[in-house]
Amino acid sequence: MRRVAILGIGQTKVDEQWDKSLREIGGEAAFDAMQDAGMEKVDALYVGNMLSSMVSGQNQLGVFFSDWIGLWKQEAVKIEAACASGAAAFRAALLAVASSETDSALVVGVEKMSDKPGSEVTAALATAADADYEGEQGISFVGLNALVMRRYMHEFGWKHKDFAPFSINAHANAMHNPCARLHNKISAEEFEKSAMVATPINIMDSSPVGDGAAAVIIVPAEKVMRQPKILVSASAAATDTIAVHSRKDPLFLQAAYLSSRRAYEMAGVTPEDIDVFELHDAFSIMAALSLEASGFAERGRGVRLGLDNEISPQGRVPVCTRGGLKARGHPVGATGIYQIVEVVQQLRGECGKTQVDGAKIGMAQNIGGSGATILTHILQND
Amino acid sequence: MRRVAILGIGQTKVDEQWDKSLREIGGEAAFDAMQDAGMEKVDALYVGNMLSSMVSGQNQLGVFFSDWIGLWKQEAVKIEAACASGAAAFRAALLAVASSETDSALVVGVEKMSDKPGSEVTAALATAADADYEGEQGISFVGLNALVMRRYMHEFGWKHKDFAPFSINAHANAMHNPCARLHNKISAEEFEKSAMVATPINIMDSSPVGDGAAAVIIVPAEKVMRQPKILVSASAAATDTIAVHSRKDPLFLQAAYLSSRRAYEMAGVTPEDIDVFELHDAFSIMAALSLEASGFAERGRGVRLGLDNEISPQGRVPVCTRGGLKARGHPVGATGIYQIVEVVQQLRGECGKTQVDGAKIGMAQNIGGSGATILTHILQND
Repeated sequence: MRRVAILGIGQTKVDEQWDKSLREIGGEAAFDAMQDAGMEKVDALYVGNMLSSMVSGQNQLGVFFSDWIGLWKQEAVKIEAACASGAAAFRAALLAVASSETDSALVVGVEKMSDKPGSEVTAALATAADADYEGEQGISFVGLNALVMRRYMHEFGWKHKDFAPFSINAHANAMHNPCARLHNKISAEEFEKSAMVATPINIMDSSPVGDGAAAVIIVPAEKVMRQPKILVSASAAATDTIAVHSRKDPLFLQAAYLSSRRAYEMAGVTPEDIDVFELHDAFSIMAALSLEASGFAERGRGVRLGLDNEISPQGRVPVCTRGGLKARGHPVGATGIYQIVEVVQQLRGECGKTQVDGAKIGMAQNIGGSGATILTHILQND
Repeated sequence: MRRVAILGIGQTKVDEQWDKSLREIGGEAAFDAMQDAGMEKVDALYVGNMLSSMVSGQNQLGVFFSDWIGLWKQEAVKIEAACASGAAAFRAALLAVASSETDSALVVGVEKMSDKPGSEVTAALATAADADYEGEQGISFVGLNALVMRRYMHEFGWKHKDFAPFSINAHANAMHNPCARLHNKISAEEFEKSAMVATPINIMDSSPVGDGAAAVIIVPAEKVMRQPKILVSASAAATDTIAVHSRKDPLFLQAAYLSSRRAYEMAGVTPEDIDVFELHDAFSIMAALSLEASGFAERGRGVRLGLDNEISPQGRVPVCTRGGLKARGHPVGATGIYQIVEVVQQLRGECGKTQVDGAKIGMAQNIGGSGATILTHILQND
């Protein structure tokens, strides 16, 4: 297969965008990416989205957006893997370009979540869990994560406050990202006393949802003149059981382990080579588990990286450098593309105060469900 | 890219399957295909589905089924393109195997539609249309097709009864397909006097929805010993505008034209070489339009093929040889895979009384929305 590069990126602010429709939000990010790439036409469109049928009464987002963007007649399709829809769409596009089936692809991750009441959105998000064996019990998504977090704290002896650095880092970094939803620094004290959502997960452990879209354009690497040339050096996907209770070890993200190991092998790198890691901190517990399964920390020691101040842009393992899900925001089906856009920004050196010095290799990891579907991508400067 | 063959097929009956869940229906077809292929493990899973989030409260069908089927750890993802979800999933799987990214793939098309009242399913199906500009007017899917059919009759001077042969042929063929939903022959008189749905479309112009799943397993052609070896010789996807009113000519299926022409070119064949054509007769008007856009009839003359008795298994252009959407049934996201399974059955010579003599090249065409997303696949004996 031929090598593939990311030529253009685009994104909207993550927010409650009451004045814009699903169509307008996705279009904005797409046009932004096309302008960045200097392209007026793209051969195929891949859309990552989870909720549009339930929230906006709109399915078939492939042609919905190819029509709106003006990519008439072109192939267009939607990929869904819950909150991993973005990365899954990126991977499908990647195979199409790498295999020479198509010469350029636009990938749009988009989600419009504000148009329904919170209770309905919570129910819609629960469709990522196992409807027969988890949803049937009435458990919400945060509830599932709370069970995992409590078990982790019990098993490895951590206190709730030990998770604070993940959220503090995310909020601090988001201050410098105009597309982030939240622009407020938080302290350890604020982290501890924020409102409880599902014990032990409080508001400050949780990522805010929102409306948003991010987009990238990929083309064969040989056609890219722009410097730095951002190569996609690895793409890997793996799954676990869909229900958390079916796992032998619910504290180990098997699919993160498998997809990251395959990605390291493909890119010929080790965790030590990764300069920036955009991980999937939907809840603070997931940040810890991702770091462990992806080889950045021993089992039960992911929290330690935060406490040791290793996760900031100046640290050994910079994560959530643009705010992460926690503070950039988590428009679910769009998140995987936001992560890839942010890694590109780091590799281009466009991140200002949260720029990781000399970043050359970046990784994005996108999680669907409570660790059920996980995709890992590695990008690097050619 | 390497050549790909279909090694195994599976399907359930299309019906109101009150005693089986989404999970069980999809699993049944998947296990059936794995048994047919003689494989216990497959490297990746692609699921085509449109409605499960709305009807069953279940998203993330990739891992949902990889878990249930026992393909633990493997890559798994869902593709959605309304009623073309099945073929779109097949195409994604095809690229993964053809590009050598994976060595085998299971594609499951599945839909469970009976678990909600008809009015809710009608509303869910309308998410295939443009929610802002078509759905907003309250128009249903059959309503959109009725507008197209009325215009076609006006433009080309056909009467409603002239469409009867499409439905009569489909019902007659379904009599010999144990997986078909309907097992009743119909006459021209019954066609004409059946209940009206949306003038001029009556019940006999319309395909029945239902619960059902179909599955195929694809592998590199060089690994297949089984005879006949069924090659996938062409795969092409194209789109039109999502809303029917945006088209310059609403009576021409541009995406069928583009995807079929590309497919003919890839396979090195012409319409005359196609021995069997499983087309997307969601409504009788779509059968006529598909035949025209795909090069089997002149503009406005698709109906003629039925009247001239060319569409039966003994005719010049056999269509819907296992009952088509009209009588096999239309479990929307599964339909594209049913079509491919049926073409394989024809190429294997397994169709008994509706076997097309000496069938060597077959085509399947799957339509999402009112002609918005269209995929064409050509299969042939090696």
